[in-house]
Amino acid sequence: MAKPPPLRHLITLADLSAEQIIDLLDTAESLRATALRPVNKLPLLRGRTVVNLFFEPSTRTRTSFELAAKRLSADVINFDVAHSSTSKGETLLDTLRNLEAMRCDLFVVRHQQNGTPAYLAEHAAPGVVIVNAGDGNHAHPTQGLLDMFTIRRHKADFSQLTITIVGDILHSRVARSDIHALRALGVGELRIAGPASLLPEDAAELGCRIYHRIEDALANSDVIIMLRLQKERMQHGLIASDQDYARCWGLDRQRLQLARADAIVMHPGPINRGVEISDEVADGAQSVILQQVSNGIAVRMAVMAKLLGQV
Amino acid sequence: MAKPPPLRHLITLADLSAEQIIDLLDTAESLRATALRPVNKLPLLRGRTVVNLFFEPSTRTRTSFELAAKRLSADVINFDVAHSSTSKGETLLDTLRNLEAMRCDLFVVRHQQNGTPAYLAEHAAPGVVIVNAGDGNHAHPTQGLLDMFTIRRHKADFSQLTITIVGDILHSRVARSDIHALRALGVGELRIAGPASLLPEDAAELGCRIYHRIEDALANSDVIIMLRLQKERMQHGLIASDQDYARCWGLDRQRLQLARADAIVMHPGPINRGVEISDEVADGAQSVILQQVSNGIAVRMAVMAKLLGQV
Amino acid sequence: MAKPPPLRHLITLADLSAEQIIDLLDTAESLRATALRPVNKLPLLRGRTVVNLFFEPSTRTRTSFELAAKRLSADVINFDVAHSSTSKGETLLDTLRNLEAMRCDLFVVRHQQNGTPAYLAEHAAPGVVIVNAGDGNHAHPTQGLLDMFTIRRHKADFSQLTITIVGDILHSRVARSDIHALRALGVGELRIAGPASLLPEDAAELGCRIYHRIEDALANSDVIIMLRLQKERMQHGLIASDQDYARCWGLDRQRLQLARADAIVMHPGPINRGVEISDEVADGAQSVILQQVSNGIAVRMAVMAKLLGQV
Repeated sequence: MAKPPPLRHLITLADLSAEQIIDLLDTAESLRATALRPVNKLPLLRGRTVVNLFFEPSTRTRTSFELAAKRLSADVINFDVAHSSTSKGETLLDTLRNLEAMRCDLFVVRHQQNGTPAYLAEHAAPGVVIVNAGDGNHAHPTQGLLDMFTIRRHKADFSQLTITIVGDILHSRVARSDIHALRALGVGELRIAGPASLLPEDAAELGCRIYHRIEDALANSDVIIMLRLQKERMQHGLIASDQDYARCWGLDRQRLQLARADAIVMHPGPINRGVEISDEVADGAQSVILQQVSNGIAVRMAVMAKLLGQV
Repeated sequence: MAKPPPLRHLITLADLSAEQIIDLLDTAESLRATALRPVNKLPLLRGRTVVNLFFEPSTRTRTSFELAAKRLSADVINFDVAHSSTSKGETLLDTLRNLEAMRCDLFVVRHQQNGTPAYLAEHAAPGVVIVNAGDGNHAHPTQGLLDMFTIRRHKADFSQLTITIVGDILHSRVARSDIHALRALGVGELRIAGPASLLPEDAAELGCRIYHRIEDALANSDVIIMLRLQKERMQHGLIASDQDYARCWGLDRQRLQLARADAIVMHPGPINRGVEISDEVADGAQSVILQQVSNGIAVRMAVMAKLLGQV
Repeated sequence: MAKPPPLRHLITLADLSAEQIIDLLDTAESLRATALRPVNKLPLLRGRTVVNLFFEPSTRTRTSFELAAKRLSADVINFDVAHSSTSKGETLLDTLRNLEAMRCDLFVVRHQQNGTPAYLAEHAAPGVVIVNAGDGNHAHPTQGLLDMFTIRRHKADFSQLTITIVGDILHSRVARSDIHALRALGVGELRIAGPASLLPEDAAELGCRIYHRIEDALANSDVIIMLRLQKERMQHGLIASDQDYARCWGLDRQRLQLARADAIVMHPGPINRGVEISDEVADGAQSVILQQVSNGIAVRMAVMAKLLGQV
């Protein structure tokens, strides 16, 4: 099979082909072995500079990218936006241009506004790479990829799978990236379930079946992806309370029994224990939540090495 | 002599044998030579990841651990707790589990609450190491070790020494770790002196003789360990004022003459000049305060390399 | 030609000879080639530790120094002053002494007060190097050097050049360092222009001709250095408004035509678009602003390697 055309940036999974996604997952698989060795360094990005450009705080995702870059021997700059010229009124583009002029090679961008990584990608200098680490409710492509990677390690054939996503689909960039990837990979059946106020209007276009009761959605599922409850949704009156949410949409041991016996349970983290997921399930045998975290390193190594042309 | 059983974590010096302490000090001694070379890097922790997990700000101690880790060629992550998921309600254990899943090898933990490093050590995955960098008023074991290391470089035989600790013994994790180590090493005489309200009730159990006048405590001392005055003690009414404290418990040139002529003066830093110690003494010929700082690097290198099984 | 005497620190350009400046620029030129290679690492500072000691936030300058140090293979510590013992009342000198005791080799110091880097240089231990990264309105020597480096790459002979600096000369450490360097290098004609309230009283001593209209100052200029408008000047009533400043002192395409056809336009950044400089000029063919940023890495590499005796 011919190799897919090289990716220039990673902004969304919406326009990636199955071949491109599989190529990234295969690369991650080969890097995963390295990531598990005691001396887990590869020289692939030696002399390259990766900038973490986070406009929204996220220690966990930033740390994952930082570790992935360091394990490829890159130099990493954590660009502190709160104290930067960007906060003194410099335009975002001038910040990019300045860091490009310092010969930074790859920018990991998180921003509260949809489209910022795409905007930077559009204006990036030749050879400079933008990786979206989450923008608004638009996309979180490396999370989508690590979710696919994790599913693939447990389940052979996407076309045979019933996959259910539960929670605030409407505001979730994770859900959106998962849905795009799952459709590209030809998932058998894709279900979404959550409070009516938190479901997207374009569910049909997205190829998802909507469920209004979690029990119905879970029946015979092979993979269950629980989303994090964003507390600010409660402030906006979209959800009554933690307890209310847990009662209607939380995954506990009893409900998990509705899914297939070998179903796996996923969550992008950080988890709200006792809200969207019970302790028993989060820490149980079917949970692959920490595997997702672990796989995130290999997937981000693959994305960075691939986009910089080193694998 | 047989090697002592390998340490799994470093949480307190209370349960370490003389052999274990001496083994760490000997390792530090051999690493000290490296630490003094112009190109002071060793490949011992290459490919390993050290996480600074500081819940209490401490640039100085964090920097010491960061330098020690980098000089062993480890990758270092400064995990910014203030902006992390831990601050978004994630449990401490989930934070640990996530960083373990990213294959972080060693956690340097500082926390305002007694017992947090022990709690993490109890739950750490196999092979993952916890080093206590100070918890509440409980323990600060690497400070205790670097103090022993510094004393040993100046004085031959602990059993012949009279060592005096002055200040707020009650709230000092440094004092507690020093006392545990000195007793394990068979110190000749161990004295503590300070305001009555700041002395521990279990002084006798700790094997310390209590002094209520600094002059009496200093007489014939070989080693004087001055503690930092914590300003918050004044807010709690335990101390009247800086000047009052300096007058009763401060170490100046005159008082220093009460100790042995070759006595050394120690302080864990940062010092309050003119309060617990005068400029003349802090900067004088008997002060080994900066040697303590310097030795801290070698000792922390030894602890990390030893616990990760690389020396 | 004999080599100039070795520099011990870099605090100001006021006392540097043409030979010393040219020696640094030549070193930067030879390092620039490295800085442009894909794998842009040199082992010159391997095992050395560079500390960024920034008392004034400046992500951009800190990042430039951090990248320069990492490309020389140094370990870099970003010492967070806001959370450090310095903020707990430790003296500046004790902070220096402690970091020296940890065997840090070179301190990059930015401070709001004039003279702080000089004070630290005066007290630094033998072999320890201080580099001024900007103090008050006193000096910013690496900016001055990178400006000279950038001019030299475009214009052959300083003695044939007319160079014009526009803006708040009085409060600008950049202007001061540029002026010192340009005079040492024997610049043909040196002009300054800006609001009367923002011009220095010692302009004649500095060897500058004062202009009260930007148009007059620009006529036949070979090099134009636009300074950043510090917004706090407006708060102090020295400038009426952004628009007012742009109208009187901003550089737009029309005004630029008054200079020589091959004039270059410089700015230390970050730029206030539409205030001191128009978009057309900032992004135009004569702008070398991003080249300055790029050259800053090579110049800072040269300064650090030279002062640590590695080139």
